[in-house]
Amino acid sequence: MDDLINIRRKIKLTIAYNGANYAGWQVQNNAITVQGNIIEACKKIFKCETSVMGASRTDAGVHAYGQVATIEIESNIETKKIPYALNAHLPSDIVVQNAIEVDKKFHPRYNAKNKTYIYKIYNAEFPLPQLNDFTYFYYKKLDVKKMEIAAKQFIGEHDFKAFCSAGTSVKTTIRTIYDCSISKENNLITVSIKGNGFLYNMVRIIIGTLIEVGIGKTHPKEIIEIINSKNRSMAGKTAPAKGLSLLQIEY
Amino acid sequence: MDDLINIRRKIKLTIAYNGANYAGWQVQNNAITVQGNIIEACKKIFKCETSVMGASRTDAGVHAYGQVATIEIESNIETKKIPYALNAHLPSDIVVQNAIEVDKKFHPRYNAKNKTYIYKIYNAEFPLPQLNDFTYFYYKKLDVKKMEIAAKQFIGEHDFKAFCSAGTSVKTTIRTIYDCSISKENNLITVSIKGNGFLYNMVRIIIGTLIEVGIGKTHPKEIIEIINSKNRSMAGKTAPAKGLSLLQIEY
Repeated sequence: MDDLINIRRKIKLTIAYNGANYAGWQVQNNAITVQGNIIEACKKIFKCETSVMGASRTDAGVHAYGQVATIEIESNIETKKIPYALNAHLPSDIVVQNAIEVDKKFHPRYNAKNKTYIYKIYNAEFPLPQLNDFTYFYYKKLDVKKMEIAAKQFIGEHDFKAFCSAGTSVKTTIRTIYDCSISKENNLITVSIKGNGFLYNMVRIIIGTLIEVGIGKTHPKEIIEIINSKNRSMAGKTAPAKGLSLLQIEY
Repeated sequence: MDDLINIRRKIKLTIAYNGANYAGWQVQNNAITVQGNIIEACKKIFKCETSVMGASRTDAGVHAYGQVATIEIESNIETKKIPYALNAHLPSDIVVQNAIEVDKKFHPRYNAKNKTYIYKIYNAEFPLPQLNDFTYFYYKKLDVKKMEIAAKQFIGEHDFKAFCSAGTSVKTTIRTIYDCSISKENNLITVSIKGNGFLYNMVRIIIGTLIEVGIGKTHPKEIIEIINSKNRSMAGKTAPAKGLSLLQIEY
């Protein structure tokens, strides 16, 4: 039997998905998740239980261009054929983009150097149906210049306790943000945030706070005060999941 | 009664829609259409039958950023409030973007000076789920430089009989193309075509032909021969509807 000579291998997958129809990345009982779908696809292809370890537990409705996950398999399938095999068993809104073999010690979460998220806001009088799934429609006029000034205040190492939803236990709420920039093309505003890690809902609370700057409720200079307050109630609302996408993870 | 003093007005609407769930623009028996939805919304708001006249009969699955239609109403509703009223009664994948009052003689089709369509091709090894609804996924590597040379051959006044599907009767198959250009951003290729009018499936057949150029099956210089042949079988396949969007109509 061929299986006897197979060596256990660790494969790093890069995965894109439209999160609209999923209760997030992480497998759950009684809910359809992205990880759950990948586990099922692996079972069908590799005829055995395969551990699927993701780099980021994206929330319900959050999308990804470059989620990273590892699978451990015992199969002599060519690595470059793994995306084709998995995609054949995945729904069309989850697509494996790439597969490479990695060292067994590689850990998608602990070895990540940085992650980049993007958040898209469609700021116009009326929504654009083409963008419904992947942008947050916001009709009040946003002052992008002010938002840009505010965005820069997030860069650096800070205690982001004020930008963390309750419900998770972490050792520390200190994180480093390497970049927080905003671009605007017609009515579409894209915020890009790169950091060494993110607290629960951190990006969405940063966006909610930037929106308050954009409508003049918060002054750009107040951002640093909000950070220093370490008080969640000082920051803005948690912006909706649908505007958020995990863009890239670097190792 | 207020209604007695209302004067009949013609309103020009600009409409965006995701065509994925519709059997095209034009109202049909036993099929859900964009025009049909607008007629129903008008009935609810204006409590009467309203003629809804579209500028372009987009096919099943084709999208629009700037479809134009006129409605004739007898109501003293403020014109700028009409999009809000209609959108409240339309599904989220059809959104009226603008309404202005126009002269009763204004005709959305006959008065159009030009129309611009865009066609999006996602050219990569694997599809990107975020683009599933609005792009045609094509995995064979396309040579965009060759496609650009070919695209320019369509510009000008030509008899486009070779680029017209059977099934419609038109007085003439001569049309003028003002612009046919291609841009590429990462793996997303966008073809933009502006003309004084388009035959049935004309844009999609042009795209199918450009794809044959992109894979080397057709030489860019052959485009003019294909046009001159006036023979549908000389041109490429009709590209799928999902990649096509009506961008703009100028008057």
